[in-house]
Amino acid sequence: MPSLLDDPNLPEDAKSRARHVLEGCKGGSLGSYSDSAGIEIIRRHVAEYIERRDGFPSCWENIVLCAGASEGIRGTMKLMINHENGVKPGVMIPIPQYPLYSATIAEFDLHQIGYYLDESKNWSLDLAELKRAYDDAKSVCTPKALCVINPGNPTGNVLTRENIEGIIKFAHERNLFLFADEVYQDNVYAEGSKFHSFKKVLMEMGEPYNKMELASFMSCSKGYMGECGLRGGYAEIINLDPAVKAMYLKSISAKLCPTTLGQAVMECVVNPPKEGEPSYESFMKEKQGVLSSLATRAKMVADTFNSVPGMSCNIVQGAMYAFPQITLPEKAIEAAKKEGQAADVFYAFQLLENTGICIVPGSGFGQRPGTYHFRTTILPQPDKLKVMLEKFREFHSNFLKLYE
Amino acid sequence: MPSLLDDPNLPEDAKSRARHVLEGCKGGSLGSYSDSAGIEIIRRHVAEYIERRDGFPSCWENIVLCAGASEGIRGTMKLMINHENGVKPGVMIPIPQYPLYSATIAEFDLHQIGYYLDESKNWSLDLAELKRAYDDAKSVCTPKALCVINPGNPTGNVLTRENIEGIIKFAHERNLFLFADEVYQDNVYAEGSKFHSFKKVLMEMGEPYNKMELASFMSCSKGYMGECGLRGGYAEIINLDPAVKAMYLKSISAKLCPTTLGQAVMECVVNPPKEGEPSYESFMKEKQGVLSSLATRAKMVADTFNSVPGMSCNIVQGAMYAFPQITLPEKAIEAAKKEGQAADVFYAFQLLENTGICIVPGSGFGQRPGTYHFRTTILPQPDKLKVMLEKFREFHSNFLKLYE
Repeated sequence: MPSLLDDPNLPEDAKSRARHVLEGCKGGSLGSYSDSAGIEIIRRHVAEYIERRDGFPSCWENIVLCAGASEGIRGTMKLMINHENGVKPGVMIPIPQYPLYSATIAEFDLHQIGYYLDESKNWSLDLAELKRAYDDAKSVCTPKALCVINPGNPTGNVLTRENIEGIIKFAHERNLFLFADEVYQDNVYAEGSKFHSFKKVLMEMGEPYNKMELASFMSCSKGYMGECGLRGGYAEIINLDPAVKAMYLKSISAKLCPTTLGQAVMECVVNPPKEGEPSYESFMKEKQGVLSSLATRAKMVADTFNSVPGMSCNIVQGAMYAFPQITLPEKAIEAAKKEGQAADVFYAFQLLENTGICIVPGSGFGQRPGTYHFRTTILPQPDKLKVMLEKFREFHSNFLKLYE
Repeated sequence: MPSLLDDPNLPEDAKSRARHVLEGCKGGSLGSYSDSAGIEIIRRHVAEYIERRDGFPSCWENIVLCAGASEGIRGTMKLMINHENGVKPGVMIPIPQYPLYSATIAEFDLHQIGYYLDESKNWSLDLAELKRAYDDAKSVCTPKALCVINPGNPTGNVLTRENIEGIIKFAHERNLFLFADEVYQDNVYAEGSKFHSFKKVLMEMGEPYNKMELASFMSCSKGYMGECGLRGGYAEIINLDPAVKAMYLKSISAKLCPTTLGQAVMECVVNPPKEGEPSYESFMKEKQGVLSSLATRAKMVADTFNSVPGMSCNIVQGAMYAFPQITLPEKAIEAAKKEGQAADVFYAFQLLENTGICIVPGSGFGQRPGTYHFRTTILPQPDKLKVMLEKFREFHSNFLKLYE
C-alpha cells in the first residue's frame, strides 16, 4: 500500500508535519510506545505554542501530554491525596462545576470545597465567596488546591484579567496549588471578552506570584477542533518541587503512554498551518467558520431563553454551554417530590419525554439551594437549534400552565 | 480530500470493516466520544471473538474496551479498594511480576501478597506456594483478588490446563476475584504448550466455578500486532454483582471514553480477515511470519543464555521475554553494595555501559532473596539478536573474570 506521505493530492505542509511527528516516534511509527510524558517533539511544540500565546517562556519538560485533559487533571489531582494526621486534603471547585471534579475528588477521597459562582454577575468568580468557602472548610480539611474553569463549563463565563489576578492573590496567600482548566481557550465569543491564561497573568504579576505552583490544561476535544474521541490533551505544570515532579512522572509511567494518535492531534492544534503554507487558507476558513458559527449560536441560545417567561440566562461569553435558571411552580416541585426526583431532574425528564430534547439538570453540576438550572450546549447547527429552541419554549409554556 | 474508503487500491474487506466501525460511531466519525465502555459494534465483535476462542457464550455487555490492558486492569482493581474496619484488601500477584501490578497496588493503598513462581518447574504456578502466601497474609489484610499472568511476563511460562484448574479451585475456596492477564494469548511458541483461557477452563469446570467473578484482559500491544502506542485493549468481566457493575461503569465514565482509534485497532484484532476475503492471505502471511520468527527467537535466546557458564534460563514457552538467572560472584555483590546498588542493578549498569545492551534487573519484577535475574525481550530481529547475544556472552565472561 502506497504511503499517504507520498500522495500528491495532500498538501506539502501536512505531509511535512506528519513526517516530523513520525521522526519523533520510536521506529518511526505511531504504533510504538512513546515516553510516558509524550513524544518530545510534540511537547516542544506545545511549549512554543504557549510561548506564542502568553509571551513568556515555557519549558518543554513542564509539558505532559495526556489522553484528553480529563486524564491530565486526574493525574495531577492525585498529587493532593496525602492525608496528614488523618485530615483530608481539600480541593476548591466552582459550583456549578464540571462533574469530572466532584467525581475525582470523591474517588481520591479528598474533601470538596465548593465555592458558588456569582450568577448575578454573569457567573463570575466572587472573591468574598471564595474566602467564605475556604474559611468554612478550614476546620474539616486542609485546603490544598483551587480549581478554576475558564472559560466556564457549564456557565459560559469568561474571567476578566482583574478577576484572575484576585484569584491568584487569594491562592498565593493560602499556598494553594492552582488548577486552571483552560480547555475552552479558543471558545470566546462575547464582545469585550478575552481569554487570559492563568500562566500569563501570573507571570505578568511577577514575584512572588510567578513562583506559584500552577497546572494548566488544554485539550483537542473543544475549541474549533472537537476531536474528542481521539483523546488528546496536555498539562503544563510549573514551579513544581523537583522531587514531587519526579514522583509525578513515575506515577504516570504506570500508564505507559497516552495514545500516540491523540498526541499527534495535539501537535496539529499547537502547530497549525502558518501563513503562506498550502493548508493555511482552508484551515483558517474552517476554523473561523466554526468559531463564528458558535458565536452566533451562543447569542441565539441565550436570547431565546431570556425571551421565555420564567427563564433567565446569562450571556454565553465562551465555552460551549448555556446554564439558564428556571423558575419552577410550587406544584411542579411537589409533583417531583412525589416521583422522588429533584425538581430540575423532573423537569428534564418531562422535557425529554414530551419533546425528545435532552438537557442536563443543574443538580448534576451544583447550584444554590432552592434554585433550578439546566445545562444545554450551543453545538447543534443553527437550523436545528432554532427548531429545538422553539419546541423547548412551547414545552415550557405548557409545563407552566400544567403546574400553575 | 478523497476518502480512503473510496480508494480502489485498498482491499474491499478492509474498507467494509472500516465502514462498519464508522457506522457505529456517533456522527459516523472516530472524532466523537464513544460510550465509556466502548463502541457497541466492537464490543459485540470482541464477544464473538471470545466465543470462537472458547466455545462458550460471551455477552457483549460484559466487554469493556480500554486504552490498553493496563487501563482495564487498573480500572478493575479499583473495585478492590474498600478498606473494611481499617484492614487493607489484599491482592495476590506472582513474583516475578509485571510492575504494573505492584505500582497499582501501591497507588490504591492495597496490600500486595506475592506468591513465588516455581523457577525449577519452568516458572509454573505452585499451589502449595499460593496457599503459603495466602495463609501468611491473612492476618495483615483481607485477601480479595488473585492475579495471574498467562502467558507469563517476565517469565515466559505458559500455564497448563491442569495448573489453571488448580488455581480456579484455590480462588473459589477463598472467594477471590480472579484477574487473568492474557495479553500474550497469541504468543505461544514451545512444542506442547497451548493457551487456555481462564474463562474457558472455568466454564468447562461447570458449577460452582462458572459462577465465579473473573476479569480477563487482552491488548493490541502484544501478539503479532504490537500496536502499543495506539492504546487498545478490552476487559471481559463475568459474574459481577449487578450493583457493583453499575458502579464500575459509573467509575469509568469519569474518563469519558477510551481512544476511539485504539478501539478500532481492537476491532481489527478480534475481527481479522476471513478465508476468502481479499486481505486474508497477506494478513495470514504477516501474522504467521511474525509469530514463527518470534518462536525462533524465543528458542535462540534461551539456548544462548543456557550455554553461558553461570547463567540458566527456562524455556520461553510464550510471551516476549526471557528471565534468566545469573550467579553473581561474591566480589561483584560486594562491589554493588559499595555503589549502593542491588547486585543485579549493578550488573545491568555494567552491561549497559560496556556494551550498550539494556536489560531490566530482576529486582524490578521481584525474585527470591539471594537470587539474581534479568529480563530481556525476544523482540529484536534475529540478526541483531545474534550480535547482541554474542556481545552479552563476552561481557558476562569478562565480568566473571573481573570479580572472581
